[in-house]
Formats: sequence, C-alpha cells, structure tokens
Amino acid sequence: MTAEIFRRVSSINVGLEAFAKAVRDQGAPSTQVDWSPPADGDFETVELLTRLWGIHGDRVTEANRDVVARIEAARPQAVTVAPAGDVLPWLAEGRRLLHSGPPIVWGRVCDPQRRAMVAATLFEGWADDRASAEGLLSSGAIALASGNEHGHVGPMTGICSPSMQVWVVEDPATGLRGHATLNEGPGNTLWFGVGGDAAIERLRFFRDVVGPTIADLIARTGPVDVFALAAQGLQMGDELHMRSQATGNLLLRDFAGGLAALGAEATAEFMASNHHFFLTLTMAAAKCASLAGQQVADSSVVSLISRNGTDVGIQLAGLPGRWFIAPAAPVQDALLSTGFSPDDAALDIGDSAVIECIGLGGMALAAAPAVAGFFGGTAADTVRRGREMADICVARSTRFQLAALDGAGTPVGIDARSVAELGVTPQITTGVLHNSSGAGQIGAGIAHQPIAPFRDALTALADALDDH
Amino acid sequence: MTAEIFRRVSSINVGLEAFAKAVRDQGAPSTQVDWSPPADGDFETVELLTRLWGIHGDRVTEANRDVVARIEAARPQAVTVAPAGDVLPWLAEGRRLLHSGPPIVWGRVCDPQRRAMVAATLFEGWADDRASAEGLLSSGAIALASGNEHGHVGPMTGICSPSMQVWVVEDPATGLRGHATLNEGPGNTLWFGVGGDAAIERLRFFRDVVGPTIADLIARTGPVDVFALAAQGLQMGDELHMRSQATGNLLLRDFAGGLAALGAEATAEFMASNHHFFLTLTMAAAKCASLAGQQVADSSVVSLISRNGTDVGIQLAGLPGRWFIAPAAPVQDALLSTGFSPDDAALDIGDSAVIECIGLGGMALAAAPAVAGFFGGTAADTVRRGREMADICVARSTRFQLAALDGAGTPVGIDARSVAELGVTPQITTGVLHNSSGAGQIGAGIAHQPIAPFRDALTALADALDDH
Repeated sequence: MTAEIFRRVSSINVGLEAFAKAVRDQGAPSTQVDWSPPADGDFETVELLTRLWGIHGDRVTEANRDVVARIEAARPQAVTVAPAGDVLPWLAEGRRLLHSGPPIVWGRVCDPQRRAMVAATLFEGWADDRASAEGLLSSGAIALASGNEHGHVGPMTGICSPSMQVWVVEDPATGLRGHATLNEGPGNTLWFGVGGDAAIERLRFFRDVVGPTIADLIARTGPVDVFALAAQGLQMGDELHMRSQATGNLLLRDFAGGLAALGAEATAEFMASNHHFFLTLTMAAAKCASLAGQQVADSSVVSLISRNGTDVGIQLAGLPGRWFIAPAAPVQDALLSTGFSPDDAALDIGDSAVIECIGLGGMALAAAPAVAGFFGGTAADTVRRGREMADICVARSTRFQLAALDGAGTPVGIDARSVAELGVTPQITTGVLHNSSGAGQIGAGIAHQPIAPFRDALTALADALDDH
Repeated sequence: MTAEIFRRVSSINVGLEAFAKAVRDQGAPSTQVDWSPPADGDFETVELLTRLWGIHGDRVTEANRDVVARIEAARPQAVTVAPAGDVLPWLAEGRRLLHSGPPIVWGRVCDPQRRAMVAATLFEGWADDRASAEGLLSSGAIALASGNEHGHVGPMTGICSPSMQVWVVEDPATGLRGHATLNEGPGNTLWFGVGGDAAIERLRFFRDVVGPTIADLIARTGPVDVFALAAQGLQMGDELHMRSQATGNLLLRDFAGGLAALGAEATAEFMASNHHFFLTLTMAAAKCASLAGQQVADSSVVSLISRNGTDVGIQLAGLPGRWFIAPAAPVQDALLSTGFSPDDAALDIGDSAVIECIGLGGMALAAAPAVAGFFGGTAADTVRRGREMADICVARSTRFQLAALDGAGTPVGIDARSVAELGVTPQITTGVLHNSSGAGQIGAGIAHQPIAPFRDALTALADALDDH
C-alpha cells in the first residue's frame, strides 16, 4: 500500500518519496497533519529509503508480496518427533550444539545460555560434571552453531544437542522443514538457563518417553496442521508466543484418544501440565513458513529475527543467509517477578521471534487481551500495538484472524523499509531470564528490537539491487 | 446502586422513585437527557415499582445483595457422574421423565420435546417402538415433571430418565446439589429433539462407558471445580453457554492423565469430539449456585428462567418454587442454517438460562467476540449487549472477569425490578430447533424473554412484602 501511494505522490515530486507514511496518514494529500520526518530526518536513511521505495521500489514491493504469498501458502505439518541428531545433519557427527541467535563464540555467550550448554553437555554424556563440561566448551572441543543456520529454532537459550527430541515440521508443497526441541515447561529447564540436574533428567524423560510417544501419536492420527490449530487458538485468547495454552489444549484434545489407547499417562500428564507445550511447535512451523518466504530475491521482508542474549541478528528474505547483527536489547515493557529488578535481567534472547515474522505473537496481541497485564497495558493497548505493527507489515494474514477486530487478519511480512522509515521495530512478546544467578525466568514483556540491523540490511539490499 | 440513587431522589419527590434509571443515566440530576418513562409509562407497573423500589426498596435491595453474595460464594464441584435414578429420588420409582421448562402436560408438549420423550421411553425399555411409547406418554402411564422441581436442569428438550447418566455437582459449603445429563453432542440426539436410534445407542454408550469412566476419573483426580474452569474459559473465548469448547478442553486437559491411565480411548474420543461437552456441567453448577441464592426472603433476583418450547417460567429467589409463566418466545437475533426459515423454528426451549442467572452466557458475550456472528453482530456489539445486561443486574461478578473489559466482572443477579423498569429482559444465547420435522438444531441466536412473567413475579413479591 505504501508503494502505491508513493507512486501517486512521486508523479508530483520525487523528493517526497520517503514521506509515504506521512502522506498515508493524511488520507487526503491536501490535509494538514502532524507528522515526523521519515527516519527521524536522518539523511543517510532517507537516501537509502529513496532508493528502496523509489528507484527499486516496484521490484522490492512485488518481491515482498510474493514473500507474503509464500508465507501464507505454507501449511506446515508436524510429521514426527525424532532425536535431533537423526534429522539435523550438522548434529549427526562429533560433539556439537546448536544455540539460539546469530553465531557466537563461547567467550561471548551470556550466562543463561552457558548454563544450558553445560547441561546439554552433561545430558549427552560428553562430561561427568559441570566443570569438565565448561572446559570442553571453552576449549572448543564442543562445536557451537546457530540453530537458524541448520534448520532449528530454539526458545530462549535455544540449545539443541543430538539426543534431544525435536518436532519435525514440514510444508508438504515445498518440502521445506523446520525443527524445534520439545518445550520443557517452566522452572528448572535449559531454555530458561537453569539447567540443573532435574532439567537434565527431564531431557532423559523426553528422550525415552515423551518424544517416542508423540511420534507414535502422530503416526496414529496423521500429521498435525500447526497453523490450523494456531488459527483456532487465536479465537481462544492465545497470541501464540507468550500464551499458547488454549492451542496446546487443542493439540491435547486431538491426541486424547491416542494417548488413552497407548496408555501414555506420563506424556499426557506432561502435556497437560505444560502451558508452553505448543510454543516450539509454533516456532518450527513458523521457521518452515519463513523459509518458504526466503526463496525470493529483492525482498525487504524480514525472514529472521534471532537473539542470543548477547547479539541480535536479522535476515531479509531477499538476502538469505546474510546476518545483520547488533547488540541485543533489554526486554522493555516487562513485568518482573517480586524481588527482581531490571539490573537482574538478561538481554533479549531466543529464536522465537520467528513467530512474529509470520504474523503471530506481537502481531496478534489483540487476540489475547489477558496478556495485556504482562506489559502493564489495557485491552485497548493490545489493539493499538497491533495497528502499529500493521504499519510496518506488508499485508494482513488471511488465515490468522482477530475476533476482537471482527475478523481482520494479523499483520504479516515485516517490511524492513517501513521499520527504518517509521522508526518502529517489531515488538516481540517474550520472557525475561536472570542474567547471572541461574534463577531462570524472572519476568515477561515485550522486546523492541534495535533499528541498526534493519538499516544495515537495507543498505546491503539496496547495494545488491544497484548491482543488478 | 439504583436504590441508593433512588433514596437520594425520594427525599425530594416520592413520585420520582421509579425513574431511578433515568436519573442514573443522567449522571447529574440537573442534566437534560433523552429518556423513556419507566415501564414505558405503564401505570400499573410504575405503581408496582414504586412499592418495590420505594416502600420495600431497602429490604429488597438488601436481600438481593445477599442473594448475589450467596451465588458468588458457591463453589460447585462435580463430585461424580451417576445414573439419574440413583441420585434424583423422584426418578427412582415407576416410569417417570423429567423435562426442561415449567410443568407441562403431554398434549401441550412441543414436537422436539415429544420426540425426545419418546426416545427416552425406548431407551428405558418401557416400550418397544415409537407408537407404543407415544401411547404410554399420552395415556399418562409415564409421569412427567419439570426437572427444575427435582434438582435437574437439561439443555434444550432437557429430558432426563432414570438410566441416563447425570453430573452430580455439589456446593461443599451448603451441601446443595445440581444435576444435569451428560451432553450428547451435535446431530441425532435427544436434546436437539431428534431422538432416532443412533441417539438411543449413544445413551447406552453413556450408560455403559462414558458415565462410569468419568466417575472413575473424578475418583482419581478429585472433584472438578466447575466455576474455576469456567473463569479460565472466559479468558479463552468462551461465554460458557453458546460456546464452551475452550473450557471443555481444560476439563479434558485435567482428565488427560487419568484417561490414559484407564486406557479410556472411547471416552477420550467422545469428549474430544463434542464441543458442547462442558455445557451441562456449567448448567448443573449454575443450578447449584442459584439454589444457594434461593434461600433468601424478599429478593427480586431471578433464580430461574426455564422454557419448554411451549411456555417460559421464571422464579424469584424470594419466592422459591413459585412459577410465573407466559408463552415461550421465538429465538430472535438468530442465524438459521441454509434452507430453514423462521417458520421452521421451535420456540425458545431449555433450562440452560440458569447459566445467565449466575453471570455467564448472555451476561458474558464480551468474552466471546467469535460468537458475534451468530447474532449478526460485531465484537463491539458483544460489549454493548453486556452493558445492557449490567443495567438489569445487581452487581458484577468477582470471579467471572472479562479480559476485553480489562477485568471487569460479568453482570450477575438479574433484578426483576430493573427488568420491568427498563423493559429489558435477559438475553440468553441458545440454539434453535426445528418445530416439526425432527431435523434437530437449525440455528442459534439470542432469546429475549417476554416481560410478562417478570411483572407477574414482582406483583406476587410486592403482595408478599405488603403482607409482612
């Protein structure tokens, strides 16, 4: 829409090109309104936007539409649960760990992610105690890689080791796959950066019981249409990132007969007790859909936002595999548990922002007025924040609908051009971890991403377009 | 609140007493507003309201507060499922059926309720075919009674026979009990007035499998706190009358481990496939809570609204056991299935309006914007309709909260005085049955009750108060 208005205005004055948002806000070009200059009047960004909305505008806009069409066309199905080493080739050999966020070396890994890596090392039996595990990790005897570079997305610390059980989610039309570890639930867990003995014991329970049982269930009931369940869950108070308990119950409902037939009490109890059980299924499906979008050249749609508690990295659909990195931000608008202050909070962490990249989570807050309390807001704020996200997105989803907005779709396809132009970065509903004590989750809130990597990505895209 | 304002105004002019609502709408008495005369200016009603807001006003208002406090204090727990004949003494002997709505004789029973009575007769083995069953029913060989007079509430046709499985729901503090049949789900069922052979077969499945299994599950997991689940379900898009699927999934979640331990595949599959499974549990719990409220003299709170497709009957908490009856209304604001017209629609039927009497269903539409479509409305309409209901209710619930209204409670305690004064009757979210063909459910909508029985009840209450 921005581009269409832009084209109309550009016939009058090319210099107005980057003011598309201000013109759009006016409704009619002749009306006087309050507006801020695009990109806060930053000259370099204005020049960059002129290239990307103007000279290359049609090409980028068309590519973006194609990306959103591919994201929306994806129908990711959970086809099984399997040990990560069996389905992610990079993990199949040697001592290797995947982590959330962009690539990082041990010396820069944040405290909660370190704890999770140590616990994974013990779980794999590569070391007998935490000191030896740290030794192996710091010496490089255990190789680290970004999960996103190997088909995996992990929540929060996002560690995946070969024996961990992962959802295998596939888009039948494209054959693309996304993977994510089974969600561990709250408390003493790796994803929250605790990783004590109980957390390791739970991973054994997943390996020996939950994973194989869910594989059996899917074999009985057929593949799980993840986004079909998510679309229903949106009508049940879930935004599918911070809250997905209704959707998790839909999955449990679909599995109920099979769980009873298998006599799988322990798995049933675990699924029933874990409010976040569906989270990583949404993530794996979202990864699948965003990979489908990542096949299109020239697009400025954000295909990946990923944090490791030290750095945040983003990628554009039009420049697949190229990271644009900045320091990770603190989680703002956060509600912390009693006894904790912002000084205790780790920086923003996790691959789960892939959820926002396909139109859920922070894009769908209006579906979940009950989460308003997490960021100190009202039900009306969830609608307002959703509108702000629509301003930086290419389209509204046709499959993810908001009953509170009489069926309007959630915003989908974050356009990095609009992010830079408006200075509005995607909001991501997320948890907050302790930064040093191993206390795990100490709060939840909304993470606003820094704008720098979006601008860097746009520069690279504009240069690539110039070179064609 | 009405009464407080009334007292303030009455110090100036007793004649203004019944105009409480108009004064309340003004905010400040000196502001000129549009208003309708109370009770549409009907002199008898104004005189009646003068007695009930004025002369006896404090007594009634205090009683109403007490009623709402008792409704809100009730914590109905499902303690088991049992054959109706084992737990409802009236059904224990002879050939007897309970039905929804006020008492009725066979000759006046509407078509869908007749079909359900015939099916129940066959299910009990009292007759071998439908013609013989009708013969027994028309001859009076099978006795009929209103479920509400015997501790039972039934949805739609609301038939309960001795071998049917019923929820047994008890308020621990008062020992009061409510009962309701297990919900049969959609299609060929008794509650929808179809009652074919498949419907009877399902009742056998309930008797032999589902009922005993749920009794076992409750014995394992402990009593089910019905309103605790309902309060969570309100945060998940359910208003708990027309839509209770999220709440049903919460129950299934709580039962999941037990179902697996028992290997109860058939029960799990049935619960998972029936979107309305929780409905009758809400009804039995609501009956329990409304009975708790019915222990208070002088109250004008509506404790019972019940329809049988021929008549509607209401009762007041202050006059327990006394029916006030009028012809049942058509279901207005209804969305009918393709191929059906209002001429096909049976009149309003079922005991389920007990749900509205305790602050759910039509009182809680704002929790369920997705149901707006059923009455051709928008999400904003659900909020507006809720405000209208608050105008005729004594208080807002402290346990049933609406996230879309930032945690405001649902209206609870329908004050018959306000109903008559404003001419606004309770709205009840309900289904629509075919009136002659046995086609079952042909739509859903909102049933507005006739005002006459509310006025009649108020007259009886005023007379009783005069006599004290």
